[in-house]
Amino acid sequence: MFCCFFEPARSFAQDPTGSKTGTVTDVTAAKAGSPTAAELADAVGHNKIAINIMWTLIAGFLVMFMQAGFALVETGFTQKKNVAHTMGMNFLVYALGMFGFWICGFAFMFGGALNAATLGGAPGVVSHEVIVHLFGHDFGIAGNVGFFLNSKVYDVGVFALFLFQMVFMDTTATIPTGSMAERWSFKSFLIFGLFISMFVYPLFGNWVWGGGWLSQLGVNFGLGHGHVDFAGSSVVHMVGGMAALAGAIVIGPRIGKYGKDGSVNTIPGHNIPMALLGTFILAFGWFGFNPGSTLAGGDYRISIVAVNTMMAGTAGTLAVLAILYIQGKKPDPGMLANGLLAGLVAITAPCAFVNSLSSVIIGAIAGAIVVFVIYLLDVKLKIDDPVGAFAVHGANGAWGVLSLGLFADGSYGDGWNGVPGTVKGLFYGDASQFGAQCIGTLTCAVFVFTIMYIFFKISNKITPIRVKEADEIAGLDIPEMGVHGYVD
Amino acid sequence: MFCCFFEPARSFAQDPTGSKTGTVTDVTAAKAGSPTAAELADAVGHNKIAINIMWTLIAGFLVMFMQAGFALVETGFTQKKNVAHTMGMNFLVYALGMFGFWICGFAFMFGGALNAATLGGAPGVVSHEVIVHLFGHDFGIAGNVGFFLNSKVYDVGVFALFLFQMVFMDTTATIPTGSMAERWSFKSFLIFGLFISMFVYPLFGNWVWGGGWLSQLGVNFGLGHGHVDFAGSSVVHMVGGMAALAGAIVIGPRIGKYGKDGSVNTIPGHNIPMALLGTFILAFGWFGFNPGSTLAGGDYRISIVAVNTMMAGTAGTLAVLAILYIQGKKPDPGMLANGLLAGLVAITAPCAFVNSLSSVIIGAIAGAIVVFVIYLLDVKLKIDDPVGAFAVHGANGAWGVLSLGLFADGSYGDGWNGVPGTVKGLFYGDASQFGAQCIGTLTCAVFVFTIMYIFFKISNKITPIRVKEADEIAGLDIPEMGVHGYVD
Amino acid sequence: MFCCFFEPARSFAQDPTGSKTGTVTDVTAAKAGSPTAAELADAVGHNKIAINIMWTLIAGFLVMFMQAGFALVETGFTQKKNVAHTMGMNFLVYALGMFGFWICGFAFMFGGALNAATLGGAPGVVSHEVIVHLFGHDFGIAGNVGFFLNSKVYDVGVFALFLFQMVFMDTTATIPTGSMAERWSFKSFLIFGLFISMFVYPLFGNWVWGGGWLSQLGVNFGLGHGHVDFAGSSVVHMVGGMAALAGAIVIGPRIGKYGKDGSVNTIPGHNIPMALLGTFILAFGWFGFNPGSTLAGGDYRISIVAVNTMMAGTAGTLAVLAILYIQGKKPDPGMLANGLLAGLVAITAPCAFVNSLSSVIIGAIAGAIVVFVIYLLDVKLKIDDPVGAFAVHGANGAWGVLSLGLFADGSYGDGWNGVPGTVKGLFYGDASQFGAQCIGTLTCAVFVFTIMYIFFKISNKITPIRVKEADEIAGLDIPEMGVHGYVD
Repeated sequence: MFCCFFEPARSFAQDPTGSKTGTVTDVTAAKAGSPTAAELADAVGHNKIAINIMWTLIAGFLVMFMQAGFALVETGFTQKKNVAHTMGMNFLVYALGMFGFWICGFAFMFGGALNAATLGGAPGVVSHEVIVHLFGHDFGIAGNVGFFLNSKVYDVGVFALFLFQMVFMDTTATIPTGSMAERWSFKSFLIFGLFISMFVYPLFGNWVWGGGWLSQLGVNFGLGHGHVDFAGSSVVHMVGGMAALAGAIVIGPRIGKYGKDGSVNTIPGHNIPMALLGTFILAFGWFGFNPGSTLAGGDYRISIVAVNTMMAGTAGTLAVLAILYIQGKKPDPGMLANGLLAGLVAITAPCAFVNSLSSVIIGAIAGAIVVFVIYLLDVKLKIDDPVGAFAVHGANGAWGVLSLGLFADGSYGDGWNGVPGTVKGLFYGDASQFGAQCIGTLTCAVFVFTIMYIFFKISNKITPIRVKEADEIAGLDIPEMGVHGYVD
Repeated sequence: MFCCFFEPARSFAQDPTGSKTGTVTDVTAAKAGSPTAAELADAVGHNKIAINIMWTLIAGFLVMFMQAGFALVETGFTQKKNVAHTMGMNFLVYALGMFGFWICGFAFMFGGALNAATLGGAPGVVSHEVIVHLFGHDFGIAGNVGFFLNSKVYDVGVFALFLFQMVFMDTTATIPTGSMAERWSFKSFLIFGLFISMFVYPLFGNWVWGGGWLSQLGVNFGLGHGHVDFAGSSVVHMVGGMAALAGAIVIGPRIGKYGKDGSVNTIPGHNIPMALLGTFILAFGWFGFNPGSTLAGGDYRISIVAVNTMMAGTAGTLAVLAILYIQGKKPDPGMLANGLLAGLVAITAPCAFVNSLSSVIIGAIAGAIVVFVIYLLDVKLKIDDPVGAFAVHGANGAWGVLSLGLFADGSYGDGWNGVPGTVKGLFYGDASQFGAQCIGTLTCAVFVFTIMYIFFKISNKITPIRVKEADEIAGLDIPEMGVHGYVD
Repeated sequence: MFCCFFEPARSFAQDPTGSKTGTVTDVTAAKAGSPTAAELADAVGHNKIAINIMWTLIAGFLVMFMQAGFALVETGFTQKKNVAHTMGMNFLVYALGMFGFWICGFAFMFGGALNAATLGGAPGVVSHEVIVHLFGHDFGIAGNVGFFLNSKVYDVGVFALFLFQMVFMDTTATIPTGSMAERWSFKSFLIFGLFISMFVYPLFGNWVWGGGWLSQLGVNFGLGHGHVDFAGSSVVHMVGGMAALAGAIVIGPRIGKYGKDGSVNTIPGHNIPMALLGTFILAFGWFGFNPGSTLAGGDYRISIVAVNTMMAGTAGTLAVLAILYIQGKKPDPGMLANGLLAGLVAITAPCAFVNSLSSVIIGAIAGAIVVFVIYLLDVKLKIDDPVGAFAVHGANGAWGVLSLGLFADGSYGDGWNGVPGTVKGLFYGDASQFGAQCIGTLTCAVFVFTIMYIFFKISNKITPIRVKEADEIAGLDIPEMGVHGYVD
């Protein structure tokens, strides 16, 4: 602290009355008090960078806190006998995923840019010109530098990006712990945590955000601006949701969920306040997730992104409420929470590109989707997803990127993915953008489902994916974690 | 993300050592590297706007998180048999209130300014000159443009303001869910949620913050700076508290609260850790509530506001502790939590205008008030307010705005509400300011209590305000929400 | 709000499309639209100060929220019968510590700087030149001005520093509530809360961060840059941890913890989800703790600090996981949580000075330390520390400052504590820096343990430190706090 205390001491003007003036000496100048234009520009640029780093970091902190939200939602929506296990998975995935992303995930995802940088830029330094240069030229499927976040190579901006991306990846990694809850072997989960953070998330992420082929569909094939996903309806949520679906299918339903006579049993969550607190934390963290994805506090669009995020969540909640009343049901708080989350997942891709009325429509449809898909999986397909992870993240992740292809109104995104002009959806005249969104969605669905299905099958050979039947019936806390979740 | 990734890539200087210099190229200039004064000023202005939007948004996010705090405090302080119901109301009020505020609340509250803007400014654009122009001229009681937050009309600053105001409104809307807990019909609550967010909060808000008549008491009648309320002791908390009082009276006490022999029974809350976690979350969010109400990170007063907020909460807590010991009682954590909240509510209006010693005095008195008013309602008036919502928000909301009229020391608020000079209270020589505060307080009490009392009476005709007796005794979770809050 | 609404209204450019330009009129100029270099510099300086104050305050808010994390971790890891007591202590310590720090703690800690300021600067105003002047000259052991945070003396920067330091102090104060949980008399705790916040934390803090003698070991004796502690491994955590150790020894083990036959009994915590939620909140708040300790958003090092913080926590968690598996044990979530916290405590001192690989090593060793020291105290020394407070904060606080003396790589800290050049540890060629770290660590251990041991012994004469045996067995909630923590 100390030495740094210095800097703010110099920065904080003496100001007993709270008036609002800095001092000329706050600008470093060769001739004290008389800065040149170049010195002024340097100081202005320094402030600008500080604003962008601060914004990205603070937003990243909020996203990190979403881990607590996921843990509470999943634990609250599952049974009391498994709380230490469900919380334990959600807790450990934070560290596990981070470690995998640090080892190689970040390198695979953004190393294409970094590689070009080390080749074309000043040796050993990632410089922006090179990244700029990259746009429109990189057509890769994975990067290959940046393993272990070697700090000799990176600048402070890359560190901020690493932090922000790491917490995004952890969101993806935590989604399947919901769909596979109450029966997943902890050891099998450990392998999964490393696999998804080291390979699966980074690969699809590279294609959309790392300069990979999906982002170049516009430049190369004239499909709008390529696959556009502002904050991760596909990259984060749909990847997590597809992995959750594959996992739920491979691991099979919980004992007692489906009767031999085809009956469907409800296994209620054990703690509604816990789940709703988790939902509030997720909604809070989403203000980092979406607005933070500008990666720049100087992008004024942040206020529109934040309002759209909020409104879509509202619309999702109220749509579910309306559906429940229409169906003659009671306002189950768990379903209302899923409605809020569905709206938030869906608006994540289009939040920067649509107006607030569209965000309400997108959110309301998301609410309807979550009710329908939960019913579809739970009753029709008999896929046991205890917390509705696929309905919330998978189905609505897909709806999110598709909705961008419909509702983007051309008020934002000039030059996005190297294509001139702003981003417009089908309803605003650009059908090809919708085409790019469809390709991205299909790619995500097929690629992630396939690779994760195979992964779960293979990992099952290494260590059984499913706990013993007796443990599942008695509860996983003691056999898997060694402690009781609750002690009376 | 991607395209935006661009911006920080350009912004983040290459900086492996973490040194502190921007680059001249961060300032956009016709002649690269040699910006003119106008170009420099433009870049400086851009940073300034970014700082203010970032601050307002981040503060708004913190305030939004207070919803979780209210949910936990109210649920923790009530009975186990009603947790899904109490949490459910607190959860849904977030979406419900937001929807109502989006439809018309924001328009009624700030539409006066917006209307003038659309008339007098560039067509279809809210520009600041017009808002400036407004001050001292608008004498309205409600605005009339801005319904559905039509994004063609608004600039990004208005979106930030909408977000910040929306979460304030939701704080108001959630307060009566405490005083009416454990017996309020969920359907009746739904009507209330829309009514207060669409009409009641926006109207009083317009009078104080939207250029309405209370804010103009200074300009028009020489009463100080008019009714001054920095962050909402009256606009947010007292409005919520008066509505809570009206609701508690109309709905009547819980079964078993008062014996037929006049005895007063304590119905203890079911979960102290939950209530205290909620209190911590509220105290955390209050750092958005009060310091954020500068709406500008460039207003250095934020650090004084933050410290005053903290100190008043402390003083409220310790005052309650002292009173409990003087009364020979144990240090009930629930009462200590109410002491903290009381101090925070009271300092909300004066936090920017008083010094830290005054904030301690204001907070300590707030602590005494909360103990006394809880006793008054609970024992003397036999009004059943399960969580002390009126004592915390209503009584201390009133004390907060009045205390501003006493302790404002003239170090801040130059030109506030169009009146030259800084804001001074009675103890610093301006009795008329105290007069304006009294008028505002009285107006809030009479207006909100009356309209809400009538509203609850009428809404009771549409759908019964109170659940069935059998449901109340058995617990509201299954009959009202369809699920158990806790499952063993 | 209102009048301030003004400022953002002026600041927020009209921007329906979210484009990114400020306006020249945002820079105040005598000749509107044509600012001079001095006027531009003033506006740039104002932005710079705003960035630094915002960063410091937001970081401080996050640190404040850690109080909730401590409360949940300690309550979750202890028994159900004492929840109101454990939560109550953790709740009240926030207010109590703040009050003590406001009365005199802040003055003792930073008053040396303030005193020089009032003597050498403009009368009654703390100005930066004086603080600058101070470095290298002040060799004190305590300050003596700034009692009650008299706002006539301070500038807004000092208020921000007070807030940030206050929440740090409260972290220290709350640590012993863990080691002494389930048997500490509430009245005895009250005395402790004032004592540590008024005297112990401020004294050691003065020596390291307030210009005191430990910070001057470099200038005066050539020992590196003196004792360096970026964010408080020693100042905050080790002080708290040593106090926790002294308290645990003086108060003695809980009834039933150790059998008369020398057996060691495990008393499991009652609520794992509560403890893990608390851990997440602590990890979230740590992003304020460490990155915020730059006290400047304009110090780009914040992104490196944040990533190092994250990585060390990860490494601590995974190290504990590995050790548990090697020992043939189950992955106890409580131990994993302690691993995360251990890594975070250890990296707190060196986070700004080391690269990310070193942070992983430091964190992994911290994980090993926490497992070993918990075993040492619990089984070998038979010191009952219910939540492992000493192992997490004391032992790893020491390891944190020592590790800085080993791993600091010379990429940061130019001129730290008045010594030219950057900070380098033993592995990077400066053995004397490691010497300074050893002296600081030893001083902290001896000074804090001794003074707190004596304090607890003496305070025990004033009011018994330990509750009655019958109360301890029955649970402290009713006898100490007057309410049940949980009501069925």
